[in-house]
Amino acid sequence: MLPCARAWKRGSRLLHLPCAEKDTFINGCRTVTSRTLSTASDTPKKVIFSGIQPTGVPHLGNYLGALRQWVKLQDESDKSTRLIYSLVDLHAITIRQDPAQLRQWKKESLAMLLAIGLDPTRCTIFHQSDVPAHSELMWVLSCQASTGYLGRMTQWKDKTSNEKEGSERLKLGLFSYPVLQAADVLVHQTTHVPVGYDQAQHLEFAREVAQGFNHLYGADTLAIPETIISPAKRVMSLTDPQAKMSKSHPNPKSRILLTDSEETIKAKLKSAVTDSLEGITYDPPNRPGVSNLVDIIFHAEDHTSAGEDGSGQAALAKELNGTSLRVVKERAATAVNDIVRPIRERYAELIEQQSYLDEAAAAGAFKAQISAAETIQKVRKAIGVA
Amino acid sequence: MLPCARAWKRGSRLLHLPCAEKDTFINGCRTVTSRTLSTASDTPKKVIFSGIQPTGVPHLGNYLGALRQWVKLQDESDKSTRLIYSLVDLHAITIRQDPAQLRQWKKESLAMLLAIGLDPTRCTIFHQSDVPAHSELMWVLSCQASTGYLGRMTQWKDKTSNEKEGSERLKLGLFSYPVLQAADVLVHQTTHVPVGYDQAQHLEFAREVAQGFNHLYGADTLAIPETIISPAKRVMSLTDPQAKMSKSHPNPKSRILLTDSEETIKAKLKSAVTDSLEGITYDPPNRPGVSNLVDIIFHAEDHTSAGEDGSGQAALAKELNGTSLRVVKERAATAVNDIVRPIRERYAELIEQQSYLDEAAAAGAFKAQISAAETIQKVRKAIGVA
Repeated sequence: MLPCARAWKRGSRLLHLPCAEKDTFINGCRTVTSRTLSTASDTPKKVIFSGIQPTGVPHLGNYLGALRQWVKLQDESDKSTRLIYSLVDLHAITIRQDPAQLRQWKKESLAMLLAIGLDPTRCTIFHQSDVPAHSELMWVLSCQASTGYLGRMTQWKDKTSNEKEGSERLKLGLFSYPVLQAADVLVHQTTHVPVGYDQAQHLEFAREVAQGFNHLYGADTLAIPETIISPAKRVMSLTDPQAKMSKSHPNPKSRILLTDSEETIKAKLKSAVTDSLEGITYDPPNRPGVSNLVDIIFHAEDHTSAGEDGSGQAALAKELNGTSLRVVKERAATAVNDIVRPIRERYAELIEQQSYLDEAAAAGAFKAQISAAETIQKVRKAIGVA
Repeated sequence: MLPCARAWKRGSRLLHLPCAEKDTFINGCRTVTSRTLSTASDTPKKVIFSGIQPTGVPHLGNYLGALRQWVKLQDESDKSTRLIYSLVDLHAITIRQDPAQLRQWKKESLAMLLAIGLDPTRCTIFHQSDVPAHSELMWVLSCQASTGYLGRMTQWKDKTSNEKEGSERLKLGLFSYPVLQAADVLVHQTTHVPVGYDQAQHLEFAREVAQGFNHLYGADTLAIPETIISPAKRVMSLTDPQAKMSKSHPNPKSRILLTDSEETIKAKLKSAVTDSLEGITYDPPNRPGVSNLVDIIFHAEDHTSAGEDGSGQAALAKELNGTSLRVVKERAATAVNDIVRPIRERYAELIEQQSYLDEAAAAGAFKAQISAAETIQKVRKAIGVA
């Protein structure tokens, strides 16, 4: 059962908005009315923003670490909360990308956000580059952000220390992208950002830039975003369990994609690197491979517990201790496949629906443009260019 | 006789375009038709772009050094040449500006561009911040430009060497603005840029960024701009003739504004710093004050000669040598007032016409948006975000 499309007009501009039949995975059937679209002016209590780079099919780590929370936020938030999720293609180009590949990835990533259960009539799902206000605000904030602060960012320092000849050859975009990230968040008057620990420093930067801007130009110009403490569900590589599961690792067996078949999931987990110690214990520093399997089972089977203190994982390890690693891997495969199966199936349908994806992208872009327009106009007036 | 306005519609969007009665200073009366507006696709032989910061009424140095050439280019260019002149307000904010002051300056600067004789139906005259594609392309080029190259820019090195604590406190915008300048030029497929000597390095940077981009993404994506060699008509400060005449000098007597009255011009030139040596000679290194007066007379009386080699000025000095400094200053005042008077009078009329200025700004913005849209779409496709 695939979603149908309903066309609507606004002025001379034709946009389409997705409309799903009841009981399909997209909850209910709503058309965007001018009221829905004008919520930018309604000052919602909460605005949640998050982004993901469209650089390939997301993996289990992306899902358990971030994307599942996006859906949870959608399903559990008050109706007045605005949810804005961006495919941040402008961040993807800070490293060189093959244009055809990036174009394909953008399509796949959008399909995946819909496949995991995000409802494009409830959320604003859009490609960052479709909203010029992100780049506009980035420049304005560039005139507020000090080069010293940017130079002290951990990720920049890591990059420069990897370069034999210092930072000379590194592109400006690698230095300045935290300012674009700040603009991404601030241009939508975001109040809450779910972030992983590796992004906390960048959100703090966004907060400071916004506070500095408001101090100069008026206290109410930019909302100061807060962090939504995100349980650190770090899923590690299956082949190198001391490193995070990553899209860019050369070995595809190191990660489980949300498009992987049951057989592939089984095979990847079967070949997961563990150790030769006796029994099953949860001890990430000393037994990273085994502990990663326990973590995967724990988070895949239990969608509610944060599992931050590791006590849930320790209890699970105790329960598994009588069995073998083979059994643990099979249980992980079952748990993972139970999560991945419905996503994989929805994705397979959606990826064939080019016109529906185009419509969803256009509607998302339009809603995001409206959301951003209010802020950018406010900023333009505040600084005196309008 | 003030220009009237004629309204026209394009789709659901209402814009006004200026329409002057014949024999007023705006040549003839033309309305912008869809054909004129679509010239973006007509691949003109030449596209000339230049910009000026809207940070106060331009002075004689701005006029003789750049603005007079803008008018000359308008009057002498082939009809197929597109002329794009921008009030670069996004560059003005790299240093802190008072918002109300900046807003007023933007209005005054636009009025001044019209007052010097630029025809808004012939040229595209617009506020930079009205065209988001400048900021969009800036980000894309940020991913091409190396931090090392930017760090070697003379103006950045000057700024860092002035800071006691190094570059730490300097804002990112001061480091990255050459990339925005490159975007300003490249987003309009500019073929020719009239630049002063202090901007030649930045144009070379724009050329290299464009060449690098084309190398990666296709030879025809961005036009490579050439320099229009601009005769170095450097007008010096009247109170400190070893420094350039500048908008920001604390002493207003150091500069002649294009709005100054005849009396003010006379008084400022009368009090111009010279020296107590005998006679009138043209010797800028040793007699900067006297030589500056000779230069002013030479360029103000002669609108055609480049005067680069100084031979014209030397001849003029010889002619003036029998007279006194008082006579030289009076001749300078007459020559300058002859240039400033018509500009001052047109400006006085225009600055009262808020609605006409709004219409000119809206029409300019619209034409510039169309011009930039073609490039930004080409760039988006080239890099794979569209």
